[in-house]
Amino acid sequence: MPQGQLDPDQVPDDGLTTRQRRMLPVTAVHTGKGKGKSTSAFGTALRAWNQGMNIAVFQFVKSAKWKIGEEEVFLRLGELHDAEGLGGAVEWHKMGSGWSWSRKKGDESDHAADAVDGWEEIKRRLAAEQHDFYVLDEFTYPLKWGWIDVEDVAETLRSRPGRQHVFITGRDAPEGLIEVADLVTEMSLVKHPMQAGRKGQKGIEW
Amino acid sequence: MPQGQLDPDQVPDDGLTTRQRRMLPVTAVHTGKGKGKSTSAFGTALRAWNQGMNIAVFQFVKSAKWKIGEEEVFLRLGELHDAEGLGGAVEWHKMGSGWSWSRKKGDESDHAADAVDGWEEIKRRLAAEQHDFYVLDEFTYPLKWGWIDVEDVAETLRSRPGRQHVFITGRDAPEGLIEVADLVTEMSLVKHPMQAGRKGQKGIEW
Repeated sequence: MPQGQLDPDQVPDDGLTTRQRRMLPVTAVHTGKGKGKSTSAFGTALRAWNQGMNIAVFQFVKSAKWKIGEEEVFLRLGELHDAEGLGGAVEWHKMGSGWSWSRKKGDESDHAADAVDGWEEIKRRLAAEQHDFYVLDEFTYPLKWGWIDVEDVAETLRSRPGRQHVFITGRDAPEGLIEVADLVTEMSLVKHPMQAGRKGQKGIEW
Repeated sequence: MPQGQLDPDQVPDDGLTTRQRRMLPVTAVHTGKGKGKSTSAFGTALRAWNQGMNIAVFQFVKSAKWKIGEEEVFLRLGELHDAEGLGGAVEWHKMGSGWSWSRKKGDESDHAADAVDGWEEIKRRLAAEQHDFYVLDEFTYPLKWGWIDVEDVAETLRSRPGRQHVFITGRDAPEGLIEVADLVTEMSLVKHPMQAGRKGQKGIEW
């Protein structure tokens, strides 16, 4: 049954009212080897968009060619917002095609430097409270590979101003990220078509 | 990294070509106590819609009041399809408000009978190859409660004609359903805001 109907396990001793607690920003991490980490983050972003939230997606993928259906649909939803005032504004940024604020072309340059460049921009936007809902897709990989400092990420998320939700996806989320998150879901692979020799297909994988 | 870029573990001895295997229908189950089961199914449905697939959602929830943002967004995407030919057609059916093909009002009637009524309609549609992508949201509960026969579901899915993808969500997916699925993801709860006394909030839970 819908989980929003469940009662919280306990009332915390944090001096906040239920209403204040309901207004807290959420830091969510979707990790594990199973499918559904990114699709679930984008599914939640749909809800947020529908509530009028300003959405920003940052995809930390290396290839410019990798394009998922969500990108097209969200950009269209952003147009609906701009043209008819529905939902929220949408921005979609991809490391692989070169961040839009950066002059460098993604595929020609240093992936580690590109990842840092992406994170620095996200920090600036968080400080400026530029968006309501951030998706940092595949963001655990530059953390895992040591390109971006986990402690810097944890501290930035912990101290960010206002009510900005941040959803982070990717395998092997580091412990320092798990600690600072409110909501952590592990997607485990129980069974996958690729185990039966089937490749990814249109409408399912992209 | 995107899983569509992975190679399959092995080439199966099923007499099919890679292309034929790529065209097989997918039966997916999202289960477990963690969040992301439904959002991920709807996120995948976004991809499918974007590829022009005809989408049908069947929500097996009891309350007519429970409405998630995805419903509004997908109905709008369906309008975009009808008006401009973008993406695929969309139908959204909810048990709680009375199935659209049924005369009964959901909240006044027998939930077990309503669930069976929903499943019988889905069977008819599968037989008629009416849609390309089905989401059976919270469908594991009527199975778990014995309202709908798991063997009937497994056999129907196993023998369905054509290339109709079926995504099923809900906790405690029964073994008979797992067996017939190609793709099973277990969403495990690592950490949840409700554990810190926080209630569901707008843009995240609905």
